[in-house]
Amino acid sequence: MVWVKRIDHTAVAVQDLDEAIDRWRAMTGARLESRDRVPDQGVEVAMLSLGDTTVELVQPLDEGSGVSRFLAKHGESLHHIGLEVNDIERAIGEMSGSGLELIDREPRRGVHGSIAFMDPRSAGGVLLELIEKKRGTE
Amino acid sequence: MVWVKRIDHTAVAVQDLDEAIDRWRAMTGARLESRDRVPDQGVEVAMLSLGDTTVELVQPLDEGSGVSRFLAKHGESLHHIGLEVNDIERAIGEMSGSGLELIDREPRRGVHGSIAFMDPRSAGGVLLELIEKKRGTE
Repeated sequence: MVWVKRIDHTAVAVQDLDEAIDRWRAMTGARLESRDRVPDQGVEVAMLSLGDTTVELVQPLDEGSGVSRFLAKHGESLHHIGLEVNDIERAIGEMSGSGLELIDREPRRGVHGSIAFMDPRSAGGVLLELIEKKRGTE
Repeated sequence: MVWVKRIDHTAVAVQDLDEAIDRWRAMTGARLESRDRVPDQGVEVAMLSLGDTTVELVQPLDEGSGVSRFLAKHGESLHHIGLEVNDIERAIGEMSGSGLELIDREPRRGVHGSIAFMDPRSAGGVLLELIEKKRGTE
């Protein structure tokens, strides 16, 4: 069984990152913590803090990314939940052992740590990202 | 400007609350904190804690509820984000004053506090709930 520490972030797919950052800042007082291009995932992401919680805004960089297909199908809306785990390799092993399907069988390097996405069909339709955060980014 | 304290919860629309609670507990080690029927909103909701963060599972009680229509359109998936505010009447006033549209112009009584939903068209497609929590439920 995977013992998740907490929700690390709730992610929103957006068409225009600048506009979305401005909207969230104005609407909620959220603070922009980081902004990174992640070319190997075809996205640009911004992390905004709301107290001790985080909203991630994700904009596709090209037509081929999963987020681009998501936006074409669903429009701008909630995209995934990032769940912080202590040990991502162990979490992947335990989930696979419980019959849950993962999109990533091996952890990938994300901006803020090692990540793996679960198959939404194993998680009641919700896209879940497991993340073991880099030390110093908690 | 509304200064949101933090994300109070991330909510998932589900068809079968029992099954979803079991899944989240087994998959993440989440702890069931409360479960309530809210007939005037046509839903039954369960709050599960993951460390200091919360997932809300929402099941419709009847065909007429908004969550029922959401499920018919999107299937089980992420439904809304609950944003904790200090003073919901002030938050509603400031949002209306900034030209943002709310579904609830007046706060409603929710299970865990006073709530108001924003119109997703004013929030980049994301359904946002404002919540001023009851004292003693923080």
